[in-house]
Amino acid sequence: MNKNIVGIDWGTSNRRAYLIDQSGACLAEHADDQGMLAVGGRDRFGASLAGLLAAMRLPSDVSVIMSGMVGSASGWQEVDYLDASVPLARLPSHLAAVTDPAWAGRATIVPGYVYRDGGAADVMRGEETQLLGAVALGHRDGWIVLPGTHSKWVLLRDGVIQSIATYMTGEFFAMLSKGGTLSAMLSGDSANADGFATGLKQAASHAPLTNSLFRVRAGVVSRSAPAEQAAATISGLLIGAEFAAAARAADGLGITVIGSPALAARYAVAAQHFGLTCAVLDPHQVYCTAVSQFLKASS
Amino acid sequence: MNKNIVGIDWGTSNRRAYLIDQSGACLAEHADDQGMLAVGGRDRFGASLAGLLAAMRLPSDVSVIMSGMVGSASGWQEVDYLDASVPLARLPSHLAAVTDPAWAGRATIVPGYVYRDGGAADVMRGEETQLLGAVALGHRDGWIVLPGTHSKWVLLRDGVIQSIATYMTGEFFAMLSKGGTLSAMLSGDSANADGFATGLKQAASHAPLTNSLFRVRAGVVSRSAPAEQAAATISGLLIGAEFAAAARAADGLGITVIGSPALAARYAVAAQHFGLTCAVLDPHQVYCTAVSQFLKASS
Repeated sequence: MNKNIVGIDWGTSNRRAYLIDQSGACLAEHADDQGMLAVGGRDRFGASLAGLLAAMRLPSDVSVIMSGMVGSASGWQEVDYLDASVPLARLPSHLAAVTDPAWAGRATIVPGYVYRDGGAADVMRGEETQLLGAVALGHRDGWIVLPGTHSKWVLLRDGVIQSIATYMTGEFFAMLSKGGTLSAMLSGDSANADGFATGLKQAASHAPLTNSLFRVRAGVVSRSAPAEQAAATISGLLIGAEFAAAARAADGLGITVIGSPALAARYAVAAQHFGLTCAVLDPHQVYCTAVSQFLKASS
Repeated sequence: MNKNIVGIDWGTSNRRAYLIDQSGACLAEHADDQGMLAVGGRDRFGASLAGLLAAMRLPSDVSVIMSGMVGSASGWQEVDYLDASVPLARLPSHLAAVTDPAWAGRATIVPGYVYRDGGAADVMRGEETQLLGAVALGHRDGWIVLPGTHSKWVLLRDGVIQSIATYMTGEFFAMLSKGGTLSAMLSGDSANADGFATGLKQAASHAPLTNSLFRVRAGVVSRSAPAEQAAATISGLLIGAEFAAAARAADGLGITVIGSPALAARYAVAAQHFGLTCAVLDPHQVYCTAVSQFLKASS
């Protein structure tokens, strides 16, 4: 019997699959743009998954574990959120079996988490799998930061989620670039170091982003700030807003960033600005580690 | 000689013209969508203005005073910003003559203001004319609020600008409605009273909008907030961010809103939530009052 497993990070726009063996080694990888929105409806996920396995030349009876938006109300099958109090190490005992008869018994979906704070709530789907990997790699305490379209800041204590905060950082940057008052400035270099530092500094004021972002433009039109730094200043304001909020919540803890090298480098600069130590983990390694945890628990 | 004057509020997307007589009465009004972007280039403002006067059946030699983006770098002629320390009552002595020979001697542009705060700057073009009108109507102290695409909060002391803060409230609401994670929720009723109150309450936390806006969606998908209130909650968060920032800057001062009845009503609710008194002025009356001040000063 084949004891390998395929882990699929199935998001809104893209998906990425990893074939993991019993030792936890990653034997193969596959990425494509067949995210939830591209699949085109609940009843087409099965065919989409079969296509993915065929593209990876895998036997059709291989076990599959999926995380991300595939488990949302608009995905293959809605899987209820776990409460934040459930330790990440217990995730393997909460997997939801896919009910589609063609896949029952060998395809499961990882549940996301909901965090409740008074009347407010924050949620994740997909990042919990990364968190399980980080915990297995020894990162059981402090802030885990997963930057991206929706950046997640998760505070861990002994492998248990203490809080979840999502920031629409990447989505805002893309949206502001597409049109409106700031779009012309955003065609510039968003990595300019001086501009980025200016944005980080201004983020510490906690002014609303509707105001601080406008002031980037006001600085340019009133000739008090260089236009070529504006895109990086906006990046610094958006990323800095995450740090300013987290710094208020738990001063002095270090952060562990799970992200691509380019994005992680930007967060490392911001961490230094806010006086936080910063470790960086590779998201692929973290994901594979999590899948091997699931595999271990199932055998 | 014709001593009437035409005041034109010439913005980015629209313009509105008022014919004012020496007594300050408004004899005629005209609004169209020939804002700066529609004119199509610097050298076409003259023809556009001639068309406006013809549409109003006015003699071609009538005096014209223009405010707004018509005086920006992308407008008819760039007019330098005044420093915030210049009293609003002195605006009539800072009008810039249009240099286009066809209009020289009878067309002028009102300068905007720049406010500098350490390294940061904020600016206005067009709102200064409303402010002159408000001052002439006796509103010389406290917050003047001009809600809209770019909401302006201006703190006045004895008719002099103490600070300018711009919030991209209307632009953000429109941008978030157009696409992305929140757009589906924004097709709902943005005036729902309970939802709006929820947003105002959450705005007081000073959490970054990238986070608080995401949490509106998180509340709906985790079944902790009613979906039909989400659009109004987002409106409350965006408008509440203005009040939360201003409340921090100058606690307890009343506000005077210059805005349409629908928008002013929403700001009045927010003011009450934040414990501020709120007066409302009609923007057309305020603009006409300002134009009559210019006319008086020129005669």
